[in-house]
Amino acid sequence: MASGEFSLIARYFDRARTLRRDVETGIGDDCALLAVPEKQWLAISTDTLVGGTHFLSDIDPADLACKALAVNLSDLAAMGADPAWLTLALTLPSVDEAWLQAFSDSLFEQLNYYDMQLIGGDTTRGPLAMTLGIHGYVPAGRALKRSGAKAGDWIYVTGTLGDSAAGLAILQGELSPEKPQDARYLVQRHLRPTPRILQGKALRDLASSAIDISDGLIADLGHILKASDCGARLELEKLPLSHELQQSVTPDQALRWALSGGEDYELCFTAPERNRGALEVALGQTGTPWACIGQMTAAADGLRLIREGQAVTLEWKGYDHFARE
Amino acid sequence: MASGEFSLIARYFDRARTLRRDVETGIGDDCALLAVPEKQWLAISTDTLVGGTHFLSDIDPADLACKALAVNLSDLAAMGADPAWLTLALTLPSVDEAWLQAFSDSLFEQLNYYDMQLIGGDTTRGPLAMTLGIHGYVPAGRALKRSGAKAGDWIYVTGTLGDSAAGLAILQGELSPEKPQDARYLVQRHLRPTPRILQGKALRDLASSAIDISDGLIADLGHILKASDCGARLELEKLPLSHELQQSVTPDQALRWALSGGEDYELCFTAPERNRGALEVALGQTGTPWACIGQMTAAADGLRLIREGQAVTLEWKGYDHFARE
Repeated sequence: MASGEFSLIARYFDRARTLRRDVETGIGDDCALLAVPEKQWLAISTDTLVGGTHFLSDIDPADLACKALAVNLSDLAAMGADPAWLTLALTLPSVDEAWLQAFSDSLFEQLNYYDMQLIGGDTTRGPLAMTLGIHGYVPAGRALKRSGAKAGDWIYVTGTLGDSAAGLAILQGELSPEKPQDARYLVQRHLRPTPRILQGKALRDLASSAIDISDGLIADLGHILKASDCGARLELEKLPLSHELQQSVTPDQALRWALSGGEDYELCFTAPERNRGALEVALGQTGTPWACIGQMTAAADGLRLIREGQAVTLEWKGYDHFARE
Repeated sequence: MASGEFSLIARYFDRARTLRRDVETGIGDDCALLAVPEKQWLAISTDTLVGGTHFLSDIDPADLACKALAVNLSDLAAMGADPAWLTLALTLPSVDEAWLQAFSDSLFEQLNYYDMQLIGGDTTRGPLAMTLGIHGYVPAGRALKRSGAKAGDWIYVTGTLGDSAAGLAILQGELSPEKPQDARYLVQRHLRPTPRILQGKALRDLASSAIDISDGLIADLGHILKASDCGARLELEKLPLSHELQQSVTPDQALRWALSGGEDYELCFTAPERNRGALEVALGQTGTPWACIGQMTAAADGLRLIREGQAVTLEWKGYDHFARE
């Protein structure tokens, strides 16, 4: 089986760089065996990335590994969980050793950064796609959920919005910023988003709800509204936009991408007035900016977009793979 | 988002039929939250099934759900673990409601049978494929591994071997058994294999090693030999063959499929002489036959196939997706 599936998995993915104490058996048996610490809840999420749909087919494999992991880590961040283990089911059209080397090197670099261990996976032949299963811990009872927001809570986002959509437009040749450094920044924000793990942990006990922005602010905030049975007022002037985005597109395009571009992998969260001070201290220590962009209201109000004090109506929605039919 | 991804997931997969007490939050947030009982190890496995590679493209969706779950449950069985939770990442070329209804009905029927809960997933557009992540428990320190076999231990398999390959050949029009009931039996063995969960649990503390037969007996026993640093003598006359298989193919073909056909999802395990009595009692209670097919030897002996007392050489190996290049 010299060029076979098993030696392929072994060669690129059976690396023992990070050995977590909670892993009894990692790769190499029918299942991985894990010892979960007491008084911790396990947080589990899974995401699939399909070539041509979730990433451009000619993407650099090192970028792809970063992005695939970040997309999944972002779900842990949104629960306030600490990353622990990864499973990787990789479907490849053929065995391309240079590709596998670059992909796995990049993946393990990220796993080591986050003190994570790859505990299992599967390699199959087919059109390029991958499904990651991510597992983390959160202290029992302290997870951030979508359902805890109340009318009156403030609405926040970390970082800046819309950069990822601009980066994608640049990669697709639809946008050419004047300054090369702006283009580089926006492309990096698309290819290598930073999962907000530190921010999610800082928000435990302080945020009343949280979600990560994968489908766009309007779509993802919509999930909080639905789960929490609330409405919201969103102040469009307060949406945090990067200098690079503002330099590269019209204000209207920037707003459009900030609201519905998706793939920002920032956190959107809510917190009651009484936690504002503690929240500023906790988030301040993470070194990443955040912005208050609105306030939760009664469910009957729905989601209202406010510009210069006036309610406005916009047409766009979040990205949805099957909604275009 | 009436016909969108999220309502699609909600409509077919957000069913609350089985509500496990260890599930704090199931489908509907960024992650599922799970409370693992004390003194239990978590067993995790993931498998991908790609249309055209792992199943025929025209497979009945109800059969596909059974097979996909069985393939993953079989990994838990091989560790002696109890099933608990499933994640499902489903990639579909389009939204086919009849297909989704049949697939999800069948999946939930199986999940309820095994007292499992679907805790998360992802639906993406692309060529038909799915990745399941399966999670179960095994009492700490009592998992069956591939690495515990010793020279002198007896080698066993549950059920019968080769039926699944015959069933596949029938579906592909390459085999036409004389009796329709034989054909039906073999096809069912291929489409709806029975994961040996009960047998795996019965073997805790009794078997010295175990693996499930997905790639064929020779390939999978080979993994035990490698992990346990042993050789083995396999008595070809002792391989358990179903009456239906023997009625449908030549003895040589039956042997070939029993050794290397794959997808049987029976357990291959080893046990020391001193456990033979306890093993017969424990397995006897499960109602499924099992057979002793050989004995572990020193690593230097390698894997030796014995027919009528003579070592024989055969050419076939287990199925390996990338080995054919």
